[in-house]
Amino acid sequence: MTGELMVVGLGPGPERWLTPEAADAIARATDLVGYQPYVDRCPTRDGQVRHGSDNRVELDRARLAIDLARAGRTVAVVSGGDPGVFAMAAAVFEALEKDPASRTVAVTVMPGISAMMAAAARIGAPLGHDFCAISLSDNLKPWDLIRRRLTAAAEGDFVIALYNPASKARPDRIFEAFDLLRSLKAAEAPVAFARAVGRPDERVILTTLGAADPAVVDMATCVIIGSSESRFVARPIGEPWLYTPRAAGARA
Amino acid sequence: MTGELMVVGLGPGPERWLTPEAADAIARATDLVGYQPYVDRCPTRDGQVRHGSDNRVELDRARLAIDLARAGRTVAVVSGGDPGVFAMAAAVFEALEKDPASRTVAVTVMPGISAMMAAAARIGAPLGHDFCAISLSDNLKPWDLIRRRLTAAAEGDFVIALYNPASKARPDRIFEAFDLLRSLKAAEAPVAFARAVGRPDERVILTTLGAADPAVVDMATCVIIGSSESRFVARPIGEPWLYTPRAAGARA
Repeated sequence: MTGELMVVGLGPGPERWLTPEAADAIARATDLVGYQPYVDRCPTRDGQVRHGSDNRVELDRARLAIDLARAGRTVAVVSGGDPGVFAMAAAVFEALEKDPASRTVAVTVMPGISAMMAAAARIGAPLGHDFCAISLSDNLKPWDLIRRRLTAAAEGDFVIALYNPASKARPDRIFEAFDLLRSLKAAEAPVAFARAVGRPDERVILTTLGAADPAVVDMATCVIIGSSESRFVARPIGEPWLYTPRAAGARA
Repeated sequence: MTGELMVVGLGPGPERWLTPEAADAIARATDLVGYQPYVDRCPTRDGQVRHGSDNRVELDRARLAIDLARAGRTVAVVSGGDPGVFAMAAAVFEALEKDPASRTVAVTVMPGISAMMAAAARIGAPLGHDFCAISLSDNLKPWDLIRRRLTAAAEGDFVIALYNPASKARPDRIFEAFDLLRSLKAAEAPVAFARAVGRPDERVILTTLGAADPAVVDMATCVIIGSSESRFVARPIGEPWLYTPRAAGARA
């Protein structure tokens, strides 16, 4: 008997951003597998088994989910945001790659609203034109590669979204990233620190690359750094909007 | 009396990917504004006014929506995918930027599942690590800037998602983009042509940069080109999965 493995994006947090597909998956799963805070987000149901785990054990978690599905269970691996963006989907396919015998399992990835999309919507349309997403976590890749990608992103004048911008183990990486970007981009480039968008502890700071203080950044923060075209639009009341126009290159 | 302007992401198409927030917005709007095929996706409701328009009139459409909201209407500007990614949100803020008097209007951007996230979920986890999104449309930016960004994306070894990869006016741009990328990246780099994912006319082709035939690409296609780490995982039955591992740089 073979079960089912669903890799489910819960979105940034609030129910209004949870897709019907994802809501259905967590309702009908026999087993929920995930980082404990994401499992905690799901409503409880009698008979459903909840396998919450610590951070940084993604591969163990993926293996557990695969084993449960192969034993006939209906498994939802729950992930914040979109599971395909710096999240659990890659860990699941890595586990499947390492164990060819497991590849008979039926896998469905269910997309979710990614943190950068929610952050962008909250502040305007900063991702309105060409952009890139870079994880600053150097647990699994060398810092030199991150530097190379930041440099290429600046060279291409992309809008840049930074995921995993700070951790307790490496709180200085965001400062190093900003130092590098300041050497490559204009000080006037708009910056948004968008923390926990859509959740009760949301906090958004709009600033510029020259004035930004990366000390405000934690792991719940999505950092967006504008291209040379990104700009603030002042409002009579309230903070400005930030957007990147559809047209580009006129100022180059 | 001031109304409300909602910029709503409908996602790639199927209802299972429409957020509750977006569903609520299109249900309570007095006016729907958008490219006709997106307006057509919304259920009809007595008394609701539907303002469908042609493609390539984004700014006119944004102005109409702003004017309606300022006249007290509850307006939903509907957009496929995520409205903040190569879609209507940037046009709305551009219109607001050009008309300071209009900036008193209440604007809410509602994120949606973007085409590249749906495409990625359908084929595995190709966006599992650092990636960039580039529109190949050169209506509003010079082709030289697109070349510069494709070059930077290759230099940074990003996974690359291409939006608007072909139009009737410029069907050759996708060929030029592939020629450029072939000169910069390995022929073995995985490529996915993911057309209309989630809709009845979905079609997915998995290939490599060396073997890819861009002639299959149309405007409904999201093109994903892997990094040096992206890889296929063969399955006993069915097409392979495509994913990009969380770890990177070991092969560099």
